[in-house]
Amino acid sequence: MGARPDQLKLGLFLNGGHHSGGWRHPDANANTDISFADCARLVQKAERGKFDLLFLADFLAADAASDPVRSKMTWAAYLEPLTLLSALSAATTHIGLVGTATTSYNEPFHVARKFASLDHISSGRAGWNLVTTVNGAEAQNFNRNAHFAHADRYQRAEEFVDVVFGLWDSWDDDAFVRDKVSGRYYEPEKVHVLDHRGQHFSVRGPLNIARPPQGRPVIVQAGSSEPGKELAARTAEVIFTAQNEIGEAQDFYADVKGRMTKFGRSPDQLKILPGLSIIVGRTEQQAADKLGLLQSLTPPEVGARMLSSMLDIDLSGYSVDGPLPDVLPPTNGGKARQALIAAMARRENLTIRDLYSKMVTSRGHGFAIGSVERVADYIQEWFESYAFDGFNFMPPWLDGGLNDFVDLVVPELQRRGILRREYEGRTLRENLGLERPESRYADSTHISASQGA
Amino acid sequence: MGARPDQLKLGLFLNGGHHSGGWRHPDANANTDISFADCARLVQKAERGKFDLLFLADFLAADAASDPVRSKMTWAAYLEPLTLLSALSAATTHIGLVGTATTSYNEPFHVARKFASLDHISSGRAGWNLVTTVNGAEAQNFNRNAHFAHADRYQRAEEFVDVVFGLWDSWDDDAFVRDKVSGRYYEPEKVHVLDHRGQHFSVRGPLNIARPPQGRPVIVQAGSSEPGKELAARTAEVIFTAQNEIGEAQDFYADVKGRMTKFGRSPDQLKILPGLSIIVGRTEQQAADKLGLLQSLTPPEVGARMLSSMLDIDLSGYSVDGPLPDVLPPTNGGKARQALIAAMARRENLTIRDLYSKMVTSRGHGFAIGSVERVADYIQEWFESYAFDGFNFMPPWLDGGLNDFVDLVVPELQRRGILRREYEGRTLRENLGLERPESRYADSTHISASQGA
Repeated sequence: MGARPDQLKLGLFLNGGHHSGGWRHPDANANTDISFADCARLVQKAERGKFDLLFLADFLAADAASDPVRSKMTWAAYLEPLTLLSALSAATTHIGLVGTATTSYNEPFHVARKFASLDHISSGRAGWNLVTTVNGAEAQNFNRNAHFAHADRYQRAEEFVDVVFGLWDSWDDDAFVRDKVSGRYYEPEKVHVLDHRGQHFSVRGPLNIARPPQGRPVIVQAGSSEPGKELAARTAEVIFTAQNEIGEAQDFYADVKGRMTKFGRSPDQLKILPGLSIIVGRTEQQAADKLGLLQSLTPPEVGARMLSSMLDIDLSGYSVDGPLPDVLPPTNGGKARQALIAAMARRENLTIRDLYSKMVTSRGHGFAIGSVERVADYIQEWFESYAFDGFNFMPPWLDGGLNDFVDLVVPELQRRGILRREYEGRTLRENLGLERPESRYADSTHISASQGA
Repeated sequence: MGARPDQLKLGLFLNGGHHSGGWRHPDANANTDISFADCARLVQKAERGKFDLLFLADFLAADAASDPVRSKMTWAAYLEPLTLLSALSAATTHIGLVGTATTSYNEPFHVARKFASLDHISSGRAGWNLVTTVNGAEAQNFNRNAHFAHADRYQRAEEFVDVVFGLWDSWDDDAFVRDKVSGRYYEPEKVHVLDHRGQHFSVRGPLNIARPPQGRPVIVQAGSSEPGKELAARTAEVIFTAQNEIGEAQDFYADVKGRMTKFGRSPDQLKILPGLSIIVGRTEQQAADKLGLLQSLTPPEVGARMLSSMLDIDLSGYSVDGPLPDVLPPTNGGKARQALIAAMARRENLTIRDLYSKMVTSRGHGFAIGSVERVADYIQEWFESYAFDGFNFMPPWLDGGLNDFVDLVVPELQRRGILRREYEGRTLRENLGLERPESRYADSTHISASQGA
């Protein structure tokens, strides 16, 4: 397959180092969950590597925190994404700022407003990673005994995103004239009342903030389940997904992009960025040594625990040197991820120990290791064969895992012509090659302006 | 009355220029509602004036935005406080960052988390202005047809603040050891489950962020109504109130501080900072001219509208050259403010026009005008006679109203010895002279540590 006309899109997935042993690396910075200065330095490095965006995951619970095994793992407690991204906007110039907010335990008015505000503060660099909550413990922090069922979550998400889109259009782009002579601060006919009354939400509007510079912050989703793919095909502009096998990744890519037509959307208006952990060395051996060190820093009980929670099953009754049980229990959470990991285990005939050794490296996401040449080959193959449009880079440890990528791999990708040397635009949309959405009221405004003339 | 042993505490209330004509001032910057760069420049100026804190008010509706009269006024739409304060934390070093969040249409988990995150990002400079919603229109943006009644709002607020305080103590101050050798990231016995089950909220916890650097962000309240004063005496550390007459201000000061003892609190652990608008000139005439210009930039319909909304009554049926009606209708909103304004009108025998001319200047808050000497005298008298501990400065227009104060009045207050020349501490608490609260689990942690030894 020949070279693609476009270039790689890159995200930095910065929820600590992603290898379970990463924080114990002798050179690692183990404070990135709480230190703004550390986060700023890392994101500035990513900006020098011409990353499109910073990506922050999020949860609304720390339910298992009292567990001694959990206490050997990072990220039970960390800076809240919207506040962190806002502060980072003042420390950066180009990189997009994507934060997670669940539709399950938020209100659309708050979410619309905070992301619009971030978009203004950052001059058009905001993105919203729209998720439904998979962690049932979050319910108990929000006045509920039981979590929403999977289908209910997606119904709520569909309505939630429609309300948010509507609220972002509350003010026309040119509503604020601030005319000192006439005394008119804004044009009152360029304000729109949404008056949404739905199954889950009643929201009158208008939103009390001007339309975002990007029209809408960029919409990011996971979109792995069937309703998730439908929601993504209708509304997402970036998909963050877990893919570790090129054929399956190609199928996923074709599947989701193929669904877009029925919603009147062009496939190039959605960028698919699977997670990818990379360990690179100046030689193959150097890379292998780096991985070996990280693996040695992961206690077995931590590996087994991570695998258990990713599969939503307690594996403590099984021998780590035997296979996964044939039948995995139903899960209200990441069904697609459970299936993906189980399929990989069977395909490669892995024991539970083998499997968690893989999982602690990239948690079910892609993993590339080796020399600069080999890692660049891996990326180029996936990109040119339409398995992804780029990836969400998961540094195994910090700062070293990120520095290695930016210092060694980025120049090689640029040399091959598949990664930008300079940012193309000023906003996240412009860098991703996404159109700026028109307001839903754009036509009526035009008519009303003509009538007034 | 002699000099007080302490010094003035200063807030900057930055929701645009506070005079209704301020944005039309020929030199005014009219974009501060949406421009981060403008906000950063202003707050940096306040930091040079040794202000303790920046204060951002907030509402969750823009219900009247389509109204032509409203469109002649600012602040129907503006940056969201938490995102703006977070970004400003990266552009400042000393000043406290206080944002408003209502207990009526938020969840305690979100509020606890975002303010804790801001406190970490800013290294201990966060404050939460805890309000109950007075604007009934907010209900309709949050799935409700009708707003909570006044008493319900305060019951909810009392429970809300208890939950937030509990969540902030989820992790002991020394929970995170990040010990690379042992592999222990945190001490699991230093995590606490709140398990709150109350009338309005069920919140299990723990919060997924480390204890704030200040223990708790500084708690700011209005506290003008009877339940408001009780809540403030129990939990507030700063009160932002409207006072325009020194005797009434002294009564309020003594009243609220007097209530603190029954909650086991010392009166010096609460700073009372009424709003104060100031117009200062190098001469009396220069100051009068500045006011005259601003008054001329306020259309009468804007003045009448502002007064109507502050009194929660439609005054359009009354002659502007007659008095207020004798009986004002009951209000679910700012009862205390309504009474305050009505009392001032009767005391000074003001027509509706006189009254709105005063209101557009300081909206029921204090107002000082004149030479540097006269303005400093006003401030010193209120301070030394225990009418306030300082004030929340409301610049009439931007940047000029703030620049005048910092360049002319601040040096005079410093010369008189009632304003700091340098920040005393690193955190907002330290600058305000407030103690850092111990965790509610501090004793049990100590015992458990002893038992473990």
